[in-house]
Amino acid sequence: MTTPESRDDVVAPVVPARSAVRPLGLDAVRLAGGFWGEWESLARDAIIPHAEYWEERTGWLANFDAVAAGTIATRAGREFSDSEIYKLLEAMAWQLGRKPDAGLESRFAAIVARVSAAQQPDGYLSTMFGNPGQAPRWSQLDWGHELYCLGHLFQAAVARVRSGYRDELVTVATRAADHVCDVFAPGANPGICGHPEVEVGLAELGRALGERRYLDQAREFIERRGHHVLPDIEFGREYFQDDIPVRDAPVLRGHAVRALYLSSGALDVADEFADEELADAVRRAYDRTLERRTYVTGGMGSHHQDEAFGEDFELPADRAYCETCAGIGSVMTAWRLLLGTGDLRYGDIIERTMYNVVAVSPRADGRAFFYTNPLQQRVASQSVDADDISRRARAQLRAPWFEVSCCPTNVARTLSQFAAYVAVADQRGVSIVQYADADIRALLPRGAVLLRVRTDYPHNGRVSITVVESPTEAELRLRLPSWATGATVQRRGERSPVSAEALRDGVLELSALAVGEEIVLELPLAPRLTHPDPRIDAVRGSVAVELGPLVLCAESVDVDGADVADLVIDATAPLTSDASGVRARGWLRRAAPEGWPYRDDVDASGEAVEIPLVPYYSWAQRGPSTMRIWIPTS
Amino acid sequence: MTTPESRDDVVAPVVPARSAVRPLGLDAVRLAGGFWGEWESLARDAIIPHAEYWEERTGWLANFDAVAAGTIATRAGREFSDSEIYKLLEAMAWQLGRKPDAGLESRFAAIVARVSAAQQPDGYLSTMFGNPGQAPRWSQLDWGHELYCLGHLFQAAVARVRSGYRDELVTVATRAADHVCDVFAPGANPGICGHPEVEVGLAELGRALGERRYLDQAREFIERRGHHVLPDIEFGREYFQDDIPVRDAPVLRGHAVRALYLSSGALDVADEFADEELADAVRRAYDRTLERRTYVTGGMGSHHQDEAFGEDFELPADRAYCETCAGIGSVMTAWRLLLGTGDLRYGDIIERTMYNVVAVSPRADGRAFFYTNPLQQRVASQSVDADDISRRARAQLRAPWFEVSCCPTNVARTLSQFAAYVAVADQRGVSIVQYADADIRALLPRGAVLLRVRTDYPHNGRVSITVVESPTEAELRLRLPSWATGATVQRRGERSPVSAEALRDGVLELSALAVGEEIVLELPLAPRLTHPDPRIDAVRGSVAVELGPLVLCAESVDVDGADVADLVIDATAPLTSDASGVRARGWLRRAAPEGWPYRDDVDASGEAVEIPLVPYYSWAQRGPSTMRIWIPTS
Repeated sequence: MTTPESRDDVVAPVVPARSAVRPLGLDAVRLAGGFWGEWESLARDAIIPHAEYWEERTGWLANFDAVAAGTIATRAGREFSDSEIYKLLEAMAWQLGRKPDAGLESRFAAIVARVSAAQQPDGYLSTMFGNPGQAPRWSQLDWGHELYCLGHLFQAAVARVRSGYRDELVTVATRAADHVCDVFAPGANPGICGHPEVEVGLAELGRALGERRYLDQAREFIERRGHHVLPDIEFGREYFQDDIPVRDAPVLRGHAVRALYLSSGALDVADEFADEELADAVRRAYDRTLERRTYVTGGMGSHHQDEAFGEDFELPADRAYCETCAGIGSVMTAWRLLLGTGDLRYGDIIERTMYNVVAVSPRADGRAFFYTNPLQQRVASQSVDADDISRRARAQLRAPWFEVSCCPTNVARTLSQFAAYVAVADQRGVSIVQYADADIRALLPRGAVLLRVRTDYPHNGRVSITVVESPTEAELRLRLPSWATGATVQRRGERSPVSAEALRDGVLELSALAVGEEIVLELPLAPRLTHPDPRIDAVRGSVAVELGPLVLCAESVDVDGADVADLVIDATAPLTSDASGVRARGWLRRAAPEGWPYRDDVDASGEAVEIPLVPYYSWAQRGPSTMRIWIPTS
Repeated sequence: MTTPESRDDVVAPVVPARSAVRPLGLDAVRLAGGFWGEWESLARDAIIPHAEYWEERTGWLANFDAVAAGTIATRAGREFSDSEIYKLLEAMAWQLGRKPDAGLESRFAAIVARVSAAQQPDGYLSTMFGNPGQAPRWSQLDWGHELYCLGHLFQAAVARVRSGYRDELVTVATRAADHVCDVFAPGANPGICGHPEVEVGLAELGRALGERRYLDQAREFIERRGHHVLPDIEFGREYFQDDIPVRDAPVLRGHAVRALYLSSGALDVADEFADEELADAVRRAYDRTLERRTYVTGGMGSHHQDEAFGEDFELPADRAYCETCAGIGSVMTAWRLLLGTGDLRYGDIIERTMYNVVAVSPRADGRAFFYTNPLQQRVASQSVDADDISRRARAQLRAPWFEVSCCPTNVARTLSQFAAYVAVADQRGVSIVQYADADIRALLPRGAVLLRVRTDYPHNGRVSITVVESPTEAELRLRLPSWATGATVQRRGERSPVSAEALRDGVLELSALAVGEEIVLELPLAPRLTHPDPRIDAVRGSVAVELGPLVLCAESVDVDGADVADLVIDATAPLTSDASGVRARGWLRRAAPEGWPYRDDVDASGEAVEIPLVPYYSWAQRGPSTMRIWIPTS
């Protein structure tokens, strides 16, 4: 065991040199089943093998063999397909980092060997550029995704380094990173990548290996951006976040995944260079994005056309893009803000996004995925051929693989590292950020804390925390979600309401942990009505129903196949919740007259119905259906 | 003067062989100023010269010179730029058809000569394909727009033929049409064009020249479509309307301009081949589109991404695409339905679309244009450099020219032919479809009718119709807009209310016209509140204000620069209308709290204000502003 100050062996994706609270890695937080524990296992047992199958089948892995053999005349996949191999490797590496597995280790090593064989003598690595018959290296920085792919390679290597390995993948990544630093050094190639990602990869690889040069290069890329380095395009320079420097941008804009990966990299750089101005700028922009450009699910990105944020309050339910990967990017950004500020309230948006964006994507068997996550489905989704590569944004059920297949591997790596987002520590104690069945260990200056958390959350609000081990005077802090009014805490047999102050600050502080004691947090899981800000035009006159961290939805399969477009909710009637689920009272609107749909009056009468509501993450798991989260009140 | 049965010399864009009512051409209907008369003149004096300037400046015209000289190694413009030259020629031809002009005639002839010089010996004509160094002819039917461009050439030639000329443009078009018929004959090339237009061009050229072969080929193209002739694409085959045959499609879908041009061509074919099944199919699909996929402005197309219709009732105000050209396509389709069925109510959607889509596009000086026509502008539009080619769908003021510049020339040709949409005739009399200052002449079996229409419509509801000439027993029919409840008619000094039956049928029938009599129709122009169908989620809880055929909007320049996003209308208070304009009562919503925008309650209180409302077509003529048509009621 290292000293509590050492962060070298934290098996986690983000380990800042300095931060208000420090992360606890996959070795320190072990999920013991429950919602996220099951997804963690499913990633290992289903999603990862599924991605291996498709990456082989599509020829995206064989691209590396062809480069190694010098025969890459024709190439499979889009320009960024290499990144899917690296994200798969990252997912595998986190699974191996949390639990050794000889079979998985050898599959991992076999893929690494194929990647390694394609690396050029000077460290350059791409199956898309620079090989005989291909465009020259770095000749299409705007759309080529060369540096983007390498950023994912670096993140995969970080997972390896943090898990205690310095193996072939780390060597490949180091050689590639050295090459990038040579090519893009100040005074050399002044470019940046059209898709941010290399910044976050270089920063973390630099941290993990103690390689200052990588951090300098990450900073260099961050600082270059926003000065019209890339060509202007139809969507505008904001698509690339090349319109305004990161430190001057008031809000996230343009392509959502790009904006969020960039924010994450900028926070890493800000931390390493103690650049508070930069950190504050990203925090302000992200906070404003939460206030004005985020769906109730936590989803981000309103536009299909450019996969971009819309204007403030431009949040249509039916055309919501809410790409799964943008949800993951938002988790990445919020997690860095939580570490940097110590404000556990960033755990709220992480929780909301994990349950209502990331967990929506995979089918229950882990072999099909949503790419986009709209809040309303007007026409029952089309079934998908299990044997087909899908287009990304069609109204269809979860699909096995995509031409642009960023989401499945992104989900795999995120679920595989999720334990690292559950708790943090500082000198005084431990903070629980996400409620999950978990054993949490943290070393404080006076000794180790070991907590055993058991809960059926989010299906039940009771969270039991047993203090298995603790030094004297250790503290425990529990994140209180913003909806937790009415929460109680029980300690030494005594149950008391959580104070208004604690609710306001979003954190319950408990001092003087005693070995053997059980602390029970009761979060109020009654269903509740949620109203949108009146500036969100698209859902005016509608409400959503939430249950704890879960956003619920009405699905046509639960209303005898009636079109959910005709549902109206009675917002004055109580919601009911029992073993059979959550129900609202309402009515099914009478068929509107045909003809020109703009009239001098409206008839909103209808027939009384009960409206069953199910967690949004579970929608379309029972076949094609229409669905809506926001339900009209009249 | 020909016999009333002859349709050979009708100077109009659509002259069916058979139809319920027959069109009156530009020689028979002469606009005498007023709203549309002024636009007609502006098209001649400003828009046409403006397009000539830009087509020269961009090199799109010089492409023809380069082909003629055999030097087309590099080519200016997009793959469809030839069509802009043809639409300009069509606009010029209609202007010349309504009024000779030696200067315009020689500019027209000069462009025709340059086009003609680029035609190949076998009739093929394109500056994009088939020349040395270019892709082969017909090698990219899906995206190449080769046949699309020729369709516009044919429409330009039709304007010439119908105006009495058989000159070089007609020769060029005939040779190209013959070539198309050779290449795409049954049993030869089985392809269709990715963008419908050649169908409507071939059909009308066939009608104008009495060339059956062109009509057969138009039918052939219509029948081929919908059988998965074109490759599947990310947007789906519906983008090209190649998913379902025209006669089986229940509603318009996919790319809106494509769908509407195709509908127009299909109606022409249905008429020529007495194919009632096809005509009924298009009518049903268009009617359903009006009921479920049309904005209150008449605009069509909800998606930016694929410029496409959305699902039923998917009609977001802020992301409305409502391309100007889709509005023109809708006018084309509705006009053919009006001619085919004799149902004057199709004049309603033509009127709505002309005032609230087509007339929105040009700046008052005719030198800048909107490409898209959203119903809400959240952020004040950017100014546009008068010297720059613009991207099409940005939030910007009207722009002088576009990379994809279909709209300016389409507006030019439509305004130049508008007089042909004002009135129709049949054996018994004349029907006035659009109210405008006009002198209308029609030859009936018993003799000529000459009507002098004078009005300030749409600014005043009084329409005076003087019968200058008429045989005995001639009838006059007046279209009654759907909102015309309360209309009156005065005849022989006696004023009477229009009957409920006439209002329901949308037509007032007046018999036994007397030479010298004045008929005065009074249409009720009080402002009125309009509610959306409750299934249109995007504008729930909002109303629009309309005034006669005009949709009104609130613009920030009229509310002391306040953000129109914060306006709330009091739908229970009366609207006022006087010389200073229309006003509603309402309030300016108090600033909402910052923070997460989904809350357990909402505060909709605010400060009382008057809301000035201006015609939507006039918005953004006074500089950048925010704007909205649909205004929340609470």
